[in-house]
Amino acid sequence: MDVKQYMVDVGQKARQASRVVAAADSGVKNQALLAIADAIETSRETLIAANAKDLENGRSNGLDEPLLDRLELTPGRIDTMIEGLHQVAALPEPVGAITDLNYRPSGIQVGKMRVPLGVIGIIYESRPNVTVEAASLCLKSGNATILRGGSEAIHSNQAVAQCIVQGLSSVGLPETAVQVLETTDRAAVGELITMPEYVDVIVPRGGKGLIERISNDAKVTVIKHLDGICHTYIDDQADLEKAYAIAVNAKTQRYGTCNTMETLLVAEGIAEDILPRLAATYQEKGVELRGCLNVCALLSDAIPATAADWDTEYLAPILSIKIVRDMDEAIEHINQHSSQHSETIVTENYTRGRRFLLEVDSSSVMINASTRFADGFEYGLGAEIGISTDKIHARGPVGLEGLTSQKWIVLGDGHIRQ
Amino acid sequence: MDVKQYMVDVGQKARQASRVVAAADSGVKNQALLAIADAIETSRETLIAANAKDLENGRSNGLDEPLLDRLELTPGRIDTMIEGLHQVAALPEPVGAITDLNYRPSGIQVGKMRVPLGVIGIIYESRPNVTVEAASLCLKSGNATILRGGSEAIHSNQAVAQCIVQGLSSVGLPETAVQVLETTDRAAVGELITMPEYVDVIVPRGGKGLIERISNDAKVTVIKHLDGICHTYIDDQADLEKAYAIAVNAKTQRYGTCNTMETLLVAEGIAEDILPRLAATYQEKGVELRGCLNVCALLSDAIPATAADWDTEYLAPILSIKIVRDMDEAIEHINQHSSQHSETIVTENYTRGRRFLLEVDSSSVMINASTRFADGFEYGLGAEIGISTDKIHARGPVGLEGLTSQKWIVLGDGHIRQ
Repeated sequence: MDVKQYMVDVGQKARQASRVVAAADSGVKNQALLAIADAIETSRETLIAANAKDLENGRSNGLDEPLLDRLELTPGRIDTMIEGLHQVAALPEPVGAITDLNYRPSGIQVGKMRVPLGVIGIIYESRPNVTVEAASLCLKSGNATILRGGSEAIHSNQAVAQCIVQGLSSVGLPETAVQVLETTDRAAVGELITMPEYVDVIVPRGGKGLIERISNDAKVTVIKHLDGICHTYIDDQADLEKAYAIAVNAKTQRYGTCNTMETLLVAEGIAEDILPRLAATYQEKGVELRGCLNVCALLSDAIPATAADWDTEYLAPILSIKIVRDMDEAIEHINQHSSQHSETIVTENYTRGRRFLLEVDSSSVMINASTRFADGFEYGLGAEIGISTDKIHARGPVGLEGLTSQKWIVLGDGHIRQ
Repeated sequence: MDVKQYMVDVGQKARQASRVVAAADSGVKNQALLAIADAIETSRETLIAANAKDLENGRSNGLDEPLLDRLELTPGRIDTMIEGLHQVAALPEPVGAITDLNYRPSGIQVGKMRVPLGVIGIIYESRPNVTVEAASLCLKSGNATILRGGSEAIHSNQAVAQCIVQGLSSVGLPETAVQVLETTDRAAVGELITMPEYVDVIVPRGGKGLIERISNDAKVTVIKHLDGICHTYIDDQADLEKAYAIAVNAKTQRYGTCNTMETLLVAEGIAEDILPRLAATYQEKGVELRGCLNVCALLSDAIPATAADWDTEYLAPILSIKIVRDMDEAIEHINQHSSQHSETIVTENYTRGRRFLLEVDSSSVMINASTRFADGFEYGLGAEIGISTDKIHARGPVGLEGLTSQKWIVLGDGHIRQ
């Protein structure tokens, strides 16, 4: 197969289909989502058989256990896929809303209409349920989708794709509105991210390495999520109980998520009152502490942090802790070391809270709440396609609205420009 | 000078300054804009002397007359710069608005705050007044700016930069909030567009060639404006007077602007009623007509259009005309050939107007209005930094809001994730 020609063909079909789904009624899109759910329900055996092939190949290719686990389609995971489709169908329609329609001095009315982005390319790794999650969000937001899963999940993804095609065609939408690539040739990714004439946005879902590679080579906008080096700053006017609860939750509720705290900053005036108690809890939970010199002097369990610690996303039970003079030093540290994902201040001081919100330049800035709240579901987006650490288009959790844009509409009555 | 080191230094200063202007009070930013206006007023002689050097060099380097004209700073153009600064100061504050702040089931409040993008790089050609226009919009929206004007305007731009520095420092804002590059080395552009650690967005203002080059090489998001191949479709249920007025205005009010109509589509049912009258007016105004075979059969003045005509932005008194069967064919033609800038339908038919708005995928879609309205001032943005033909972030005219983004804010009272 000529990969370039294959991808151009896929791209052209996606572009054509995108015009149809962009103009499709909300009801039709929702019927398609429910029909896909039905197709998955009746294809359980086929899905599990296809997945078994992938698992077998994975084992003989020596994939490690965590990867095999992510690859596996259990009956429970199929339930979750079906439930997810019902949930997305129930979300409010993201497309078509006309806002800010006002008369201008010239007599024309000018407003904005929310519209799909067009064609979205999704590049992801082993979890086959991403195929349905991503396809459903893109379809609901009126976009055509090109999905490129990992080669280790090719049989599972193709079986899921069959269900999607069934669902789409049962309501009269083009089957090419969601295309799962049939090739595992790596060159296909290179084509996908460099055909702006057919693809409007790329959403990579995977490790930092994958995302960096794609961002470097892409000629299409990438909605990307890199590090989550999140900070909690405990101010000297913090409520100690709130500070304790938040600092424990932000680090230990889950270690491997991007909104987990990686660095704790504590005002010197309150350090002795809060740090020993926190350290005891962290020790109990098996969290390794790496501190600045003042922290090490205060906490016998802490080992000295190196310069690299302040810039590291551990995704593990490790925490760096620094004692700072005041909020100014905390903000300075955050602006220098944060990945601009999520930061929180714990304080009862009104003025400092107000300043922190304004001056910290991260996609989520919080007062007296755990950074673990930075999540599309917690924010009420209903679902999320990813979390953006960019500033352009969408920051933070990206839901259906992040898969749309706004065009201008102008209504006149024969109006001409003077 | 080591260009790379120089640009890193400029970038670092811009990043630092961006934190200060991002948090600056609205009143201080406005005072700075007015102080820059005052500095320009008192520096008229210096500006004109610096500009004279550029003009002299331009003449000896053989610049053509249109370029020299664009380069010239006349007293009237200095008036316009001063007036522009007063206008931008009077615009509503674009930064800091908190919207959609709602309680979530967990008890946290989640909302969005409008924030500056950070550091904006502007790359432009000969007009020195762009220096002030761009700097004022970026400052008002709380961004730091790095400006890279053309080498032919270096003395003028440096003189303008002096006025900007005076204005900034008179109100205590960092002088580095607006930096005009002191080098004309082309390598500086290469650095500017590939340092995402210091620059958040690039706005190129210039010809298509410049913009394409920058887009190809940039590692930073580019808010770009490429072609404006705008269409007017006259439906067979159009009001003939409105159709006549709009088709004349959209083509002939100005020829060189991106929102000028380049292709006229006419429903076959109405072609004989409207085209001869339009053709007479176009001929009177010296517009060359290039038509499909049916148009050529109807209009003796029209010459046959080639395939390339349907994809050409003439920016000149030339118009391509095609007779189409109906609106479906018109939309198909637009979706295939348009640059997704601005399109209009002339019709009295409610259903067709409604469909055209939904199905045409351009940054501005109009009913019964001239495409020439696609403009930041006409849309009420107060000012525009450019027009985007991209779908991401901002489509169409980009005003102050397009130079901002939204971050999430979370307010809690010791809330932790369950």
